[in-house]
Amino acid sequence: MPELRREPVVGRWVVIKSDPTFGPQDFEKEDHTPRKQATCPFCEGKEYLTPPEAEAIRPEDTKPNAPGWKVRVVPNKFPALKPDGVFEKLGVGIYDTTTGIGAHEVVIETPDHNQQLADLSVEDLQKVIETYINRAKELSKDKRFKYICIFKNFGESAGASLEHAHSQIIALPMVPKFVSEELEGSKYYFRYRGRCIFCDIIHQEHHDKERIVVENSDFIAFCPYAPRFAFETWIIPKRHAADFTSMNSAERTDLAKILKDVLSRIKTVLSNPSYNFFLHIAPNDYDSPESYHWHIEIIPKLTRSVGFEWGTGLYIVPTPPRSAAQFLRQE
Amino acid sequence: MPELRREPVVGRWVVIKSDPTFGPQDFEKEDHTPRKQATCPFCEGKEYLTPPEAEAIRPEDTKPNAPGWKVRVVPNKFPALKPDGVFEKLGVGIYDTTTGIGAHEVVIETPDHNQQLADLSVEDLQKVIETYINRAKELSKDKRFKYICIFKNFGESAGASLEHAHSQIIALPMVPKFVSEELEGSKYYFRYRGRCIFCDIIHQEHHDKERIVVENSDFIAFCPYAPRFAFETWIIPKRHAADFTSMNSAERTDLAKILKDVLSRIKTVLSNPSYNFFLHIAPNDYDSPESYHWHIEIIPKLTRSVGFEWGTGLYIVPTPPRSAAQFLRQE
Repeated sequence: MPELRREPVVGRWVVIKSDPTFGPQDFEKEDHTPRKQATCPFCEGKEYLTPPEAEAIRPEDTKPNAPGWKVRVVPNKFPALKPDGVFEKLGVGIYDTTTGIGAHEVVIETPDHNQQLADLSVEDLQKVIETYINRAKELSKDKRFKYICIFKNFGESAGASLEHAHSQIIALPMVPKFVSEELEGSKYYFRYRGRCIFCDIIHQEHHDKERIVVENSDFIAFCPYAPRFAFETWIIPKRHAADFTSMNSAERTDLAKILKDVLSRIKTVLSNPSYNFFLHIAPNDYDSPESYHWHIEIIPKLTRSVGFEWGTGLYIVPTPPRSAAQFLRQE
Repeated sequence: MPELRREPVVGRWVVIKSDPTFGPQDFEKEDHTPRKQATCPFCEGKEYLTPPEAEAIRPEDTKPNAPGWKVRVVPNKFPALKPDGVFEKLGVGIYDTTTGIGAHEVVIETPDHNQQLADLSVEDLQKVIETYINRAKELSKDKRFKYICIFKNFGESAGASLEHAHSQIIALPMVPKFVSEELEGSKYYFRYRGRCIFCDIIHQEHHDKERIVVENSDFIAFCPYAPRFAFETWIIPKRHAADFTSMNSAERTDLAKILKDVLSRIKTVLSNPSYNFFLHIAPNDYDSPESYHWHIEIIPKLTRSVGFEWGTGLYIVPTPPRSAAQFLRQE
């Protein structure tokens, strides 16, 4: 019998399908063999093909925009939002508009065209995480920006337009809808229970065990009870924190370890699928940090979303999260 | 300069991109030449390959599940939800679940494998609309069902698994999230303005003119001010109505005319793209029909949604709705 499940934070209902359910073998496979190294602007030695770097992790004896770097941040050449100008709000008849103020940056995760994020050493992956933290801190200084969105598209069908490993950062002048909904849902829960809903979810996942993929001292990775997508996996810190830049050194290492582990499991079990991940973090200067808990949501791109999902916001998930976690554990 | 626009009903912010913006020539093309007629279970003469029909528009001298029909409704062979059983709500630790009660039907829009919905005559397209109305009325009799979701996936990248022209109907035991948000947003607007927000949108679109694609006596088709997708187009009745089954005979004909017109324009201007459409209608026994206004949302499948959209609910639209409407008008 299919089941309808309610996502506890935002209240979204999802359908968990029954007969047939889908295992890893039931999804189409994609080939991600790198092919476009010759023209890649993100490769070491091609620094002149990108806008000047905003930041890089590189030895002190190397120059900006020259080889030698480990991680490199450059402005997006085709930005969705632009940093120049004043944030203005206007009414247009019954409609509301604002100027598209913001920042749009690319984090080049490795100088090597043939490495995926999952292939990096824990040490190098931690450099990517440090870079996210640095950029979030830096961009948050601009008081026009209310929210820093950090995300990654891997593979063409997840929306990546360049195959060289990279993630993106968009600074926004408002808090986007999905995050707003999580903030409101978790505030509501906190108001009547006095506890963080995400802390309660961690507790429940530890109790149920069956949806946990892997954990270490500081983080737990699990397939959420009411996901939107097959094999959706969340990574969440065990210590309550709304602000991901507050991670201490041990936590940063543990995050690099679990992120590498989870991405490697997804790569192996699901035959190197396209995927997206995004950090859900509190807005800048958030006034209710006791009720929100930052985390990473990873979505392997296995099925196309169809009209039904777009039309209703009700997702049909062909793989129960318990099975997904089991497959990912067995890697 | 890019612009941020607020969708007036649900409050979703979208980014309308500037340089470069995308015209019809900037999207990838798909080939929808029918190829699988030999094994198609929806073709006339292959009625034995589907579950028995729930309803059909066919001459009186033809038998159920035999050739001769114009439109045919059959249960989905792999339903997301199933009609048998009791609707039970359960708590599972901190989580909520219900039995997956519902109905999932397929509307086969034509007996001819080589016709698309846009190719049907107005008369035949009206039969599809009549079928939607009949099924919505029939399924609404089951008091376990709170919402009837009617939608269409055309083309593989829009999620269609069979190429023969068809739409789908899912009856749900709850109101899905996106519809709930529209209901709440429009109720809120009605409460402090005493007017239907959708009626106000129609008024604004008539005033601005630039986003209108086409209109007739009873319907208007326009590219909404703050869409989620490039070339997103809405069809909305001019007469206020929450319940689409209340359409009179002239309105049904006018809907068939404008739907054919809009789908044909999309087919021509965008080189026969995949698309989704869905009817946004009031839930069964809705208690605030004065504040809601049913409509159809059509989404040509031109760009992949990427991590950013999934992570934030903030959509980046590469074609301003004014330009989209202009392209569609010029067909």
